[in-house]
Amino acid sequence: MMRAIEEEEYYELTSPTLLPKASGFLWNERMMIQVTCRGYAVAQFMQPEPAKYSHAPNLEAKTFMQPEQPYYAHHPGRFVYVKDEETGEVFSAPYEPVRVPADSYTFAVGKSRIAWRVACRGILVEMSLSLPKDDVMELWRVKVTNLKPGKRRISIYPYFTVGYMSWMNQSGAYAEELQAIVCSSVTPYQKYPDYYKVKEFKDKTYLLAEHAPVSWEANQEIFEGEGGITAPSAINLPELSRSEARYEMPASVMQYRLTLNPGEEQTYRFIFGPAKDEEEIAAIRYNYFQRRNAEGEDGFTAAERKYADYIREGRGCIEIRTPDPELDNMVNHWLPRQMYYHGQTNRLTTDPQTRNFLQDHMGMSYIKPETARKAFLTALSQQKASGAMPDGIILHEEAELKYINQVPHTDHCVWLPVCISTYLDETNDYAILNEMVPFADGGGQASVFEHISLAIDWLLGDRDERGLNYINQGDWCDPMNMVGYKGRGVSGWLTIATAYACQVWADICDRSGRRDVGETFRIAAKDINDIVNTYLWDGEWYARGITDDNVVFGISSDEEGRIFINPQGWSLLSGAADQEKKEKLMRAVREQLETPYGVEKLGPPYTGMREDVGRVTQKHPGSAENGAVYNHAAAFYIYALYTAGEKEDAYRLLRKMIPGPDREDLIQRGQLPVFIPNYYRGAYKQFPRTAGRSSHLFNTGTVPWVYRCLIDGLFGLQGCPEGLRVKPQLPSDWHEAVVKRDFRGAELSIEMKRQAGVTVAEVYVDGDYAADGIVRDVKAGMTYQVVVKLPI
Amino acid sequence: MMRAIEEEEYYELTSPTLLPKASGFLWNERMMIQVTCRGYAVAQFMQPEPAKYSHAPNLEAKTFMQPEQPYYAHHPGRFVYVKDEETGEVFSAPYEPVRVPADSYTFAVGKSRIAWRVACRGILVEMSLSLPKDDVMELWRVKVTNLKPGKRRISIYPYFTVGYMSWMNQSGAYAEELQAIVCSSVTPYQKYPDYYKVKEFKDKTYLLAEHAPVSWEANQEIFEGEGGITAPSAINLPELSRSEARYEMPASVMQYRLTLNPGEEQTYRFIFGPAKDEEEIAAIRYNYFQRRNAEGEDGFTAAERKYADYIREGRGCIEIRTPDPELDNMVNHWLPRQMYYHGQTNRLTTDPQTRNFLQDHMGMSYIKPETARKAFLTALSQQKASGAMPDGIILHEEAELKYINQVPHTDHCVWLPVCISTYLDETNDYAILNEMVPFADGGGQASVFEHISLAIDWLLGDRDERGLNYINQGDWCDPMNMVGYKGRGVSGWLTIATAYACQVWADICDRSGRRDVGETFRIAAKDINDIVNTYLWDGEWYARGITDDNVVFGISSDEEGRIFINPQGWSLLSGAADQEKKEKLMRAVREQLETPYGVEKLGPPYTGMREDVGRVTQKHPGSAENGAVYNHAAAFYIYALYTAGEKEDAYRLLRKMIPGPDREDLIQRGQLPVFIPNYYRGAYKQFPRTAGRSSHLFNTGTVPWVYRCLIDGLFGLQGCPEGLRVKPQLPSDWHEAVVKRDFRGAELSIEMKRQAGVTVAEVYVDGDYAADGIVRDVKAGMTYQVVVKLPI
Repeated sequence: MMRAIEEEEYYELTSPTLLPKASGFLWNERMMIQVTCRGYAVAQFMQPEPAKYSHAPNLEAKTFMQPEQPYYAHHPGRFVYVKDEETGEVFSAPYEPVRVPADSYTFAVGKSRIAWRVACRGILVEMSLSLPKDDVMELWRVKVTNLKPGKRRISIYPYFTVGYMSWMNQSGAYAEELQAIVCSSVTPYQKYPDYYKVKEFKDKTYLLAEHAPVSWEANQEIFEGEGGITAPSAINLPELSRSEARYEMPASVMQYRLTLNPGEEQTYRFIFGPAKDEEEIAAIRYNYFQRRNAEGEDGFTAAERKYADYIREGRGCIEIRTPDPELDNMVNHWLPRQMYYHGQTNRLTTDPQTRNFLQDHMGMSYIKPETARKAFLTALSQQKASGAMPDGIILHEEAELKYINQVPHTDHCVWLPVCISTYLDETNDYAILNEMVPFADGGGQASVFEHISLAIDWLLGDRDERGLNYINQGDWCDPMNMVGYKGRGVSGWLTIATAYACQVWADICDRSGRRDVGETFRIAAKDINDIVNTYLWDGEWYARGITDDNVVFGISSDEEGRIFINPQGWSLLSGAADQEKKEKLMRAVREQLETPYGVEKLGPPYTGMREDVGRVTQKHPGSAENGAVYNHAAAFYIYALYTAGEKEDAYRLLRKMIPGPDREDLIQRGQLPVFIPNYYRGAYKQFPRTAGRSSHLFNTGTVPWVYRCLIDGLFGLQGCPEGLRVKPQLPSDWHEAVVKRDFRGAELSIEMKRQAGVTVAEVYVDGDYAADGIVRDVKAGMTYQVVVKLPI
Repeated sequence: MMRAIEEEEYYELTSPTLLPKASGFLWNERMMIQVTCRGYAVAQFMQPEPAKYSHAPNLEAKTFMQPEQPYYAHHPGRFVYVKDEETGEVFSAPYEPVRVPADSYTFAVGKSRIAWRVACRGILVEMSLSLPKDDVMELWRVKVTNLKPGKRRISIYPYFTVGYMSWMNQSGAYAEELQAIVCSSVTPYQKYPDYYKVKEFKDKTYLLAEHAPVSWEANQEIFEGEGGITAPSAINLPELSRSEARYEMPASVMQYRLTLNPGEEQTYRFIFGPAKDEEEIAAIRYNYFQRRNAEGEDGFTAAERKYADYIREGRGCIEIRTPDPELDNMVNHWLPRQMYYHGQTNRLTTDPQTRNFLQDHMGMSYIKPETARKAFLTALSQQKASGAMPDGIILHEEAELKYINQVPHTDHCVWLPVCISTYLDETNDYAILNEMVPFADGGGQASVFEHISLAIDWLLGDRDERGLNYINQGDWCDPMNMVGYKGRGVSGWLTIATAYACQVWADICDRSGRRDVGETFRIAAKDINDIVNTYLWDGEWYARGITDDNVVFGISSDEEGRIFINPQGWSLLSGAADQEKKEKLMRAVREQLETPYGVEKLGPPYTGMREDVGRVTQKHPGSAENGAVYNHAAAFYIYALYTAGEKEDAYRLLRKMIPGPDREDLIQRGQLPVFIPNYYRGAYKQFPRTAGRSSHLFNTGTVPWVYRCLIDGLFGLQGCPEGLRVKPQLPSDWHEAVVKRDFRGAELSIEMKRQAGVTVAEVYVDGDYAADGIVRDVKAGMTYQVVVKLPI
């Protein structure tokens, strides 16, 4: 059915109907494309805001990336129709739109290439997609092979959908001199100042062919005729009609007619993407198909190779071999790739939410710490002198805060110490704390240390008379927007998070030689923990908050939204929960929130509006924030479990984040294990049919936390000022594990194994016993052999 | 192929492939639905802004009504699949989505009902759609008849698409107690204050059945399966799987299984629409299907009847019989209906553009003058004390100016005297001029007369040192937005229009006993005409304007946009053009702008951005404002021709507005002659393939002007203070025409005929010769016989 090919970094699916929405995604810093196994695609590029070159068939709303993307017959896609010239029979690769069952089918998601191999009626179609490192375009290869013993005459018709480009101006035609279909449009606007933005846009979509086609079609309606997209009338004719689109829906279809001897194959290459004008397309043609480098390689092949190199740079800092091959596959290949995507693209937005931006670069600390460093300084330069952090970080001079970033949230300051601590662990670059950074609203500049201290002071100041943090129109949970909009409601989670932020910052103060400052934050943390236990402990778990009208919610007397995951996990981190509370709340989570697909964010899910909580209660039960297995929150809970030494619960939940390995689980999730989605559907008890289904959305703060779970928790290979602290928390049924750890320029090979007679973990570095488990004096360029003996 | 059934007020099309986008539309004051011959539909209702209950398959942009609506496989529609239970064969009525050619097919667009009769494989499916007068819902009848000699076992599956309702919350399920599929959603929002608006929305879509179905399906994906929308997998099974949609794409499909003897028929009725909650649906069920009135009629049948009555109220004030049956059909049935639609719905917007609103109610003056009166007073109450009119008229307390109404335009004041003059002609209600109306920005109130005088003073004041009117960011031509945005550019058309407005208002001044005031406006008009001739006459026609940088455009030296229709026609109205100029400009229009489909708005169309003209030059050549046959502008030119006595040119152009009668013309336009669209594609010389194609958009200021062309021009039956001035301008090849004219409560039967020996028109009223051609002392409730003898 499907298998991971670890060596080649591919993950394969052998049926287009088993997981119909299974997808892979590729990106560079200017674009992203997600393609499904069946040939549908969603692509966007930045100019500077996200834009499309392959559109829906109607005027689509501009919005943020949506989970559970709906697909439909005319959804944008990349298809190749294949016609037998003798019989007239037609099928399409990879599967859509004709949907003829293949004799054999493979969808192979690679790290830098996505490929299909579809054999149908004796013709093998191999398609592959890659991107260049810098340009905005898709690089496609289409290879056809005759699998039958006799000669075959066929036509193939690559069809790359263009869709409804614009109500102002759209057209399409074949440009002979470019060997390309060029579809033109003008981005609609109404106010004249917008003209100056729009005029710079890449408003053309082109399909550029290496080989001249026999015929072409640029008019979707004429191409389809009465046959429709599933059986286009134009394909029944010997040649396409070479129709232009004049303010009609453009399309880009080309026909190649070929005769193949048994076993003979033929390869075609195409470039599909947006361009400003014909000159740009001509330059692309020259650079990718005509000019060759010293090695005789053309630009197309070189771009594929360089892109693979670029993606390879995004490898993680651990490589593992454990008793759990699915974990190995995810951790060695896909998890760092997904972190790298976040860190390199900032989710293809010009105003990432502050908490997302900081966490994405927490992840980048493991891959490219210099990028993370710059990001942290950028974020801090947008802090106000009051200490408040903005709702989004502006990454482009023309960018504005959009969508949810226009709603004020109160938690952004929390993430500064929490995320920078990982950067410091990984790099030991405490010098960053002395970097001088300006404030956004004047008031001169201050050191990073002062900035972050101010941020925490802001959190400490933004509390009510009880010492609980105001929630305003939302905290980490965006749509919990009516708890405190009148200015009185408080967030239980945020109060606990403030305590945790104080703890983390106190540790950093201590380590950077600021013990007296650290002590004040440590005292603040303790105070807050006491306050939390006074006002928020409900007997078996912590409440989620208290509304404007002083109603405590997320408690045992609530019928819906009775328990929330976030206050529980964070109370373990902040130290609010003592041993007794810890055991109680862990039991509550197990009983009320744990499902086969992970822990739900809250439960039972809300089934209707609760006005004093807000929009979250109107979301569909089990979707997004309302009772889904929100992996970001789940990862935090797992992290908290590791911090609390609860390695069995932690590993069990960690494992539920990764789809598979069994067929039923994969079908239920509908996703290949090539990324961790932002959520799996929840409401497991209410809607078991849909529970576990992937959101198919790979933008998520989950991944750096999963990585922290691995580094700080499961494998216990966290950096500290002295070096690398080795303190694994392997699940008890693992007898051994091997980890290759890149750390501060050195390479450590770490072998962990259980051994009879060992009572506490023993760490040996190059054969020498390290009493405190710390690998000291780690030098860049060196390699170290570490052996960890663990009790059985 | 197609024929008009005049008696029954239907227009029929006998093939779904001949004019694939041919459509009809129905409306009431809260909703509108446009359905195509093939079963696709676009419906919207007001709450108070336009909203949908049958959605696209993706997140569609909220926008103004677009011309040339794109259709695609999953476009919203109303379909009935029919399965032969013996053979398993499936077709769908009316045509989509299965697209099986029918044995016979009729699409019948009526004034208050749209119907299909589709016979396929021995089964006749008759579908009809009507609306209630007040409620927001569709009333559907589906009748199936066995046309074959043997017994038939079939299943029918009405499928009403629901689509992608919301990313926040959507679901669908069958409600047993309601006998309805109820799909629920929450309109997405992010800011908490929006909650209070959204919570009142009708966020549910229901399909309510008179008869309980055998099975049902509310989940689109499960319904379609791998068969897709063209061959849904679910239909292959004996029964639908009764699947709910849980945050999946909802659908509403029901199955009815029936056995029909030869000739036997069975009727099903359905109601489809939006609702706030289940209680509302239950009430609808009771009121429409269960409760019966004294006549034993249920609510459904009564609603159909009352809706037909409501539409009948919208008949026009003339009924004609001429040598041109296509004109008769359009004028007697469809034109007043389209005017009525505009006047009753205000184009289903809460902020109609001021010029549209005034002209729509100019049209309403012929149908329901009391509605027009109120509208004029509403518009004037939003005038500023400076005399300036706003860009849109706010019709709902929560409404805001949207889309193009956010861009300042300078022409709105022109339309006040021009539109009110028709109201006065029709009603003789000069008392309206004394009505007191407040200003929008304080400053007390003033009489209507003072309001309009102020409006004209505003126009006279908003001119440059030459006396030419500033264009700012646009005049009647919205996207001509960069001619004068720096504050210096002027509009040639608007200057001429100001002169015409002065003339019209001077006449009204005179007629209302304000001759001295009239004289000042008459002098102003003359001055402006002189200025126009000084600065704008280009030798063969009038220029369109002068840019900020003093470049005259719309002139013979321009390669594109060389001549614009509007300055030419209006110069005939304003009196700027003397006889010589009139002949020259008419020749220029004939040679450069006239096409088989009417006169183009400008020519040659722009093929690229001209920055000193603006957005219009970026629109697709031949589309919308850029060189299309913009019927609104064309109607004005025709009106001017009638005013100038140019009856042959006028009639020739008028006739080009009405599709047909010949097959090729209908195919090229793609539209039935049941409404006049806002444009036909232009660029006739550049793109003959697409020229003439209908925009399929029935929102247009064209219709009241066509009606004025008929009343004031062709039939010459315009009101005046003394009564009805009879002055026909029949084309020379018409030998007779009969008109029934409703006028000020009286009914006049007017027979016009050419007669040998007559040298000038002679008018006889009830047998008496009327020397000045005026029917005087017209009394409500009376009938008059008028005979007009015309020279041969």
